[in-house]
Amino acid sequence: MKILVIHGPNLNLLGKREKSIYGTLTLSQINKEIEKVALSQKVKVDFYQSNHEGEIVTKIQEADDLYHGILINPAAFTHTSVAVRDAIASIQIPVVEVHLSNIHARESFRKESYVSPVAAGVIFGFGKESYLLGLRGLISILSSRKGKK
Amino acid sequence: MKILVIHGPNLNLLGKREKSIYGTLTLSQINKEIEKVALSQKVKVDFYQSNHEGEIVTKIQEADDLYHGILINPAAFTHTSVAVRDAIASIQIPVVEVHLSNIHARESFRKESYVSPVAAGVIFGFGKESYLLGLRGLISILSSRKGKK
Amino acid sequence: MKILVIHGPNLNLLGKREKSIYGTLTLSQINKEIEKVALSQKVKVDFYQSNHEGEIVTKIQEADDLYHGILINPAAFTHTSVAVRDAIASIQIPVVEVHLSNIHARESFRKESYVSPVAAGVIFGFGKESYLLGLRGLISILSSRKGKK
Amino acid sequence: MKILVIHGPNLNLLGKREKSIYGTLTLSQINKEIEKVALSQKVKVDFYQSNHEGEIVTKIQEADDLYHGILINPAAFTHTSVAVRDAIASIQIPVVEVHLSNIHARESFRKESYVSPVAAGVIFGFGKESYLLGLRGLISILSSRKGKK
Amino acid sequence: MKILVIHGPNLNLLGKREKSIYGTLTLSQINKEIEKVALSQKVKVDFYQSNHEGEIVTKIQEADDLYHGILINPAAFTHTSVAVRDAIASIQIPVVEVHLSNIHARESFRKESYVSPVAAGVIFGFGKESYLLGLRGLISILSSRKGKK
Amino acid sequence: MKILVIHGPNLNLLGKREKSIYGTLTLSQINKEIEKVALSQKVKVDFYQSNHEGEIVTKIQEADDLYHGILINPAAFTHTSVAVRDAIASIQIPVVEVHLSNIHARESFRKESYVSPVAAGVIFGFGKESYLLGLRGLISILSSRKGKK
Amino acid sequence: MKILVIHGPNLNLLGKREKSIYGTLTLSQINKEIEKVALSQKVKVDFYQSNHEGEIVTKIQEADDLYHGILINPAAFTHTSVAVRDAIASIQIPVVEVHLSNIHARESFRKESYVSPVAAGVIFGFGKESYLLGLRGLISILSSRKGKK
Amino acid sequence: MKILVIHGPNLNLLGKREKSIYGTLTLSQINKEIEKVALSQKVKVDFYQSNHEGEIVTKIQEADDLYHGILINPAAFTHTSVAVRDAIASIQIPVVEVHLSNIHARESFRKESYVSPVAAGVIFGFGKESYLLGLRGLISILSSRKGKK
Amino acid sequence: MKILVIHGPNLNLLGKREKSIYGTLTLSQINKEIEKVALSQKVKVDFYQSNHEGEIVTKIQEADDLYHGILINPAAFTHTSVAVRDAIASIQIPVVEVHLSNIHARESFRKESYVSPVAAGVIFGFGKESYLLGLRGLISILSSRKGKK
Amino acid sequence: MKILVIHGPNLNLLGKREKSIYGTLTLSQINKEIEKVALSQKVKVDFYQSNHEGEIVTKIQEADDLYHGILINPAAFTHTSVAVRDAIASIQIPVVEVHLSNIHARESFRKESYVSPVAAGVIFGFGKESYLLGLRGLISILSSRKGKK
Amino acid sequence: MKILVIHGPNLNLLGKREKSIYGTLTLSQINKEIEKVALSQKVKVDFYQSNHEGEIVTKIQEADDLYHGILINPAAFTHTSVAVRDAIASIQIPVVEVHLSNIHARESFRKESYVSPVAAGVIFGFGKESYLLGLRGLISILSSRKGKK
Amino acid sequence: MKILVIHGPNLNLLGKREKSIYGTLTLSQINKEIEKVALSQKVKVDFYQSNHEGEIVTKIQEADDLYHGILINPAAFTHTSVAVRDAIASIQIPVVEVHLSNIHARESFRKESYVSPVAAGVIFGFGKESYLLGLRGLISILSSRKGKK
Repeated sequence: MKILVIHGPNLNLLGKREKSIYGTLTLSQINKEIEKVALSQKVKVDFYQSNHEGEIVTKIQEADDLYHGILINPAAFTHTSVAVRDAIASIQIPVVEVHLSNIHARESFRKESYVSPVAAGVIFGFGKESYLLGLRGLISILSSRKGKK
Repeated sequence: MKILVIHGPNLNLLGKREKSIYGTLTLSQINKEIEKVALSQKVKVDFYQSNHEGEIVTKIQEADDLYHGILINPAAFTHTSVAVRDAIASIQIPVVEVHLSNIHARESFRKESYVSPVAAGVIFGFGKESYLLGLRGLISILSSRKGKK
Repeated sequence: MKILVIHGPNLNLLGKREKSIYGTLTLSQINKEIEKVALSQKVKVDFYQSNHEGEIVTKIQEADDLYHGILINPAAFTHTSVAVRDAIASIQIPVVEVHLSNIHARESFRKESYVSPVAAGVIFGFGKESYLLGLRGLISILSSRKGKK
Repeated sequence: MKILVIHGPNLNLLGKREKSIYGTLTLSQINKEIEKVALSQKVKVDFYQSNHEGEIVTKIQEADDLYHGILINPAAFTHTSVAVRDAIASIQIPVVEVHLSNIHARESFRKESYVSPVAAGVIFGFGKESYLLGLRGLISILSSRKGKK
Repeated sequence: MKILVIHGPNLNLLGKREKSIYGTLTLSQINKEIEKVALSQKVKVDFYQSNHEGEIVTKIQEADDLYHGILINPAAFTHTSVAVRDAIASIQIPVVEVHLSNIHARESFRKESYVSPVAAGVIFGFGKESYLLGLRGLISILSSRKGKK
Repeated sequence: MKILVIHGPNLNLLGKREKSIYGTLTLSQINKEIEKVALSQKVKVDFYQSNHEGEIVTKIQEADDLYHGILINPAAFTHTSVAVRDAIASIQIPVVEVHLSNIHARESFRKESYVSPVAAGVIFGFGKESYLLGLRGLISILSSRKGKK
Repeated sequence: MKILVIHGPNLNLLGKREKSIYGTLTLSQINKEIEKVALSQKVKVDFYQSNHEGEIVTKIQEADDLYHGILINPAAFTHTSVAVRDAIASIQIPVVEVHLSNIHARESFRKESYVSPVAAGVIFGFGKESYLLGLRGLISILSSRKGKK
Repeated sequence: MKILVIHGPNLNLLGKREKSIYGTLTLSQINKEIEKVALSQKVKVDFYQSNHEGEIVTKIQEADDLYHGILINPAAFTHTSVAVRDAIASIQIPVVEVHLSNIHARESFRKESYVSPVAAGVIFGFGKESYLLGLRGLISILSSRKGKK
Repeated sequence: MKILVIHGPNLNLLGKREKSIYGTLTLSQINKEIEKVALSQKVKVDFYQSNHEGEIVTKIQEADDLYHGILINPAAFTHTSVAVRDAIASIQIPVVEVHLSNIHARESFRKESYVSPVAAGVIFGFGKESYLLGLRGLISILSSRKGKK
Repeated sequence: MKILVIHGPNLNLLGKREKSIYGTLTLSQINKEIEKVALSQKVKVDFYQSNHEGEIVTKIQEADDLYHGILINPAAFTHTSVAVRDAIASIQIPVVEVHLSNIHARESFRKESYVSPVAAGVIFGFGKESYLLGLRGLISILSSRKGKK
Repeated sequence: MKILVIHGPNLNLLGKREKSIYGTLTLSQINKEIEKVALSQKVKVDFYQSNHEGEIVTKIQEADDLYHGILINPAAFTHTSVAVRDAIASIQIPVVEVHLSNIHARESFRKESYVSPVAAGVIFGFGKESYLLGLRGLISILSSRKGKK
Repeated sequence: MKILVIHGPNLNLLGKREKSIYGTLTLSQINKEIEKVALSQKVKVDFYQSNHEGEIVTKIQEADDLYHGILINPAAFTHTSVAVRDAIASIQIPVVEVHLSNIHARESFRKESYVSPVAAGVIFGFGKESYLLGLRGLISILSSRKGKK
């Protein structure tokens, strides 16, 4: 079972800036934690980060043939990208959306999500743990339904 | 470590009605699955279901002294109860909010949540797995912060 | 054929207060009139009044196995209770919604109804006659469809 | 006692198109059913259908002197015609509004009604039965108040 | 002269939690202060607290025959309960609404109040003093109008 | 100088119904008063009343070649007819909009006007005097600009 | 019969600036035209212009004892002054509101008027003629009702 | 193959007024151009223009049996007529909606369309060419699907 | 202890107009009642009334050095004056806002308040008693906090 | 005459996914059909697809010197890209906007278009035929106006 | 070259209150800094501060003949004064709007500005530097255009 | 001191298109003017233009270590990019936002800015001068605070 983890814009800065909000773990440290859980669940994970909406759209499209599921933190694109939404809607494999912070406890524009209605499941507010729970959730979905979106 | 699981209104019907939406598991079967995970994590869980907003408010208040955290599916009260929100805001222990279905892919009034801004974390769309992930998320929060909300 | 009649909050005051708006009939007098029509239609009716959202939710759930249909005046809960809506949506038997007054000719918040979209039919503005018409409407629905919601 | 039944735009197609939504009864069959109830209640009914807002406005005006009440399904004009509303508001006899389908379970613009606030009573969602219940409701109103709107 | 003081949901926690916002006085200490003012004004007061909307609705109804006025802090129900509003609207005795905190300086949903339009007077932002001022205001209303709402 | 006076839907009822609101003058009496003013100003007036949006649209179109200006009370069509607006916008002669009652002191939907932005001038709230003032205003416009809209 | 004409803020600039919009007549020239009509109607008029909301409020208050009616162009205060509205609502004599330009054909915030709902009549879009028509309208109101607002 | 072309209100004025916006072609010249394209595509076309909503509704209903498709420019009714929408929704043959001007570059109320959601396809902004493209689009739809809407 | 009482626009009319709404007490009579309570509480009060926003702003600024607190009825400025809000926000002494009538039971624009979020406490609906309660509330605030806003 | 055809994000997936909605034609097959029509009209077409907003903006800019017109399906960028809108607004050559599906019959956010107000013409709902009609429309515009936007 | 600097309501308090927000410079110190820059640019500046909307309106009107440009910080009037907007719109000389704080990072009502659409340029968020930059911007505008607004 | 100047999408066209709106200066000419001011202030500036949101996000991130401040004209991204906002929010160095045109005097969607709330200061409407003022403002900020955002 292969899963693609996509990190949206500005997540490359994790652990380097705004540590009081996002904690001190860097993105690569988070990726290692994800890998550890993946290993324990006998799942292979690849990682991808981009600040470009277009690259993420393309990556989602390609993942449909190469992976069994996607774990995505769309970050800012959550609230502005219909293109990411359409890409997710057009593929077969399930997509789980995660966020580090509690997006409902921040600016009101962060409550609107283009992605959530087409996601299989959504998790936010647990910090880096959001990714780990999301991975487990995705694996659980993949186990119960075979390829059906 | 002791955790209280609260099921909101109508969840007592799980597995008995609207099976195409909510699946065939009954609430007590879900509780058993939660218990299994709890056991594996060496956590004690109690269960509570009510169709009464007032009872759930009271239960949340009392839990502050008796439990280390709350796992709640507020169901319909998510969108209508400021009282449940205020109860959660007034206690010290962390509260994780879960939903079986993807509430962002349903009627638009289900996007508004009084509970999410005061929850420690939120998970929805994974079916019964939402509870299991929520339990893990709650335990993770409790492990990293000791009693701090 | 058995039908449950549910009266929402404050309807226990009927005929005792605000007579200029709601008329001088008491709730038990209205119930008697309903009973008379029921008798003439060879239908058995039970009555239930509560000021508690949770009790009404539970009553709706239980009615699914005990009655062939529900005639409900949700009163204030019409505009605030997703829990009542979810209870109605989760059961098999048809539910008819009635109101004594013309809720579209009052405060604007009374135009919004959580219940109407999941009701089989809606009647308002006829005073106590709303109940009698609602009962006939419900019987008519039950006659034409057998148990299908 | 004489009652005018007014059918709004497109209702002449009843039973001919969109049978899955509106059933297979034609308008003249519905009229016959209305007539049957009217007969049993010793009331005389006339029927009128038009796709023209202006004709319906005129008909409502004229009815004030010729009938004791109006039973109207304003169909599309419900949501767009202030002229129909003003006509109803300007006459003395009571007007009952009915709809075949549950207009609260359809497109959101169908929740807004210019007619309801000036109607004596409103009934919707019962299919052809909406008319029959509306007739009974209108007769009941006429019986209790003599000519007073 | 007899007055009923009603405390809404979560107010039983006063002085125990969120002391930085609500102060360190417990509900029973506040009740004692109210009693002292009542005594000085030669008024008898009873106290009632509930987390249940239905119980508060019922209490308001019953108060109409047993008391000369109601002093209520509806707390969370201020913003969500049409049932409490309807109960207040249906009784004869005057109702004064109070809040400890300045509800206009908090979340925007706390600006909307179902209760205020049917209250005789409204006081908020003075902490426990809101109750004491509310009691005086209520007595003043009762003195100037005899039983008229 | 020739002017067309157009009365919108339901205005044929003037003086016959809702006298407390609209006064006891009939439409033909108002027309006579308009004629008297017209005579004094050496202007010829024709009158037209219709409950049909389409007829009023056609009348406005035709007036462009036959009259020097239009005095219109669009009544209900003020708030619902883009067709009347478009007709007015497409002709060369000036159009003055009048209303008997103060439309800003009634239901909120009466504040929205499709006609006002394309009218040369607007007058409301003076009862039948609105027409007489409107006629004077229209004549004044025609005197100062020759045929220019 | 004595009438007070009030010109709101910036109207002192009339005829001096933005001539393409407001024409080349100065405020004193307009006042002369108003005086001419007043003379012909045997009415005495006084004039007042101010850029101060407070002064206009005070003037309106004082006018109640000194004049039989007010003709006001509230200009910018139309859209922002509840104080002017309250002053008009609190006096007995009728107030007619006029505007030079068509305020419905300009920025959308100019459609909202605090004054119109409490005005006896409203006229706009006729340039300086709006004042003359307004004066006639006001006289007509005063003639038909004696002192009643 | 027979197609009905329906022109909505005010389109009879084409080429006669507002030439700077709508061009100098008259409606009959546009019809001739449509006919030429129809001829080249071996399709028969009939034309109908009306300023009456009711007549257009009726025409749409009748077309269902007499034509294979409808090409309609609903003009003002686009934004105000639920009756036209319901007529289109109730028939089997496909309907293509066209507009001469770019309705998204005009007043904001022209962005709302009751017709578009039930049209098979929509074309606007090409002037008279909108009709010719619409005809081709309609023929293409009819060729690929036989009678299915 | 010295307190400044500020009365906003139109309050100079109290007891002279709209007696059915505001009662028959004049402003100076109300001031006398306030003075009586002040005396009993050993507090000195000064009074100020103005119809000018700017004067009230200046008065609030100056009060900061001369008084220990402000009791203000901003009247119409409540809903339109950011300047009054900013003045209150910029001073150190506490400000209590009062209204004679129940502003939540009137026009909807009276529910919006610029002042309430920066007031220490708010009281409305008690008639002249609002001032007396407000004075007591202000004194209570001043007693518990010494100069801290 | 040279025309650039731009396909927005996710259109590279055409014919491969969501065939029930978008049909089974691939993008290159659609391009071939466009080419065939272009050939028949003696027009040269180039094609460009990108998932990157920035690349499409740049392409539109460059097209101004290299092409006579642009045929664009902005897909998701229709609803989110002011940059694409600004690019189109800044160039001289005409731009025609097309969509495969009926965007007015889908999610409500798809009704808002940044592109339509600056497009020369808009076509949607005809499937691949939207492109072919759009090409014809664009050629027609280019024929009638020479280079003028 | 002569420039008028206008300070809106409450700015007379600068440096005396809320120092944490607005800094410790007093208004006269800021004026001195403005004077220094003016001197270096060989421009004469006058200063004016008022808490009265009407005085500022009059000052703006008079400035048109006496100055070459206006530098204004409208403070609270930014969000509430159409009169200030209209005054600025009616004069010929350019007006630059400045604010000390970042008004987009404060309460949402501070985002709405009546002044900005009629200002030549807008600057905010730089503290006292906003004035200095605004002065330079205004001089730059005056240099490039000679008196044209 | 080193400053990065970022030009958003479509600004590469400056001076080449829409000269009536944006003037005839090209981007490189503007850059030269910026450089001249920078030189006079002894500041080093680098320039960057991109039509890609992702590239600008990355550039902002990288600037944090390489520059002391950013001067940005986000152009279209102002209104659509949460990613640019988040990038600015995540870095330490101050960011000044500038626009050539008066964005409050254009389409209403240009009033909404994701960037302004996280910018240190905002300047718009001065044409190319906006950049020069922005540079001075940024230098002023950097001078007064050393590295603190």
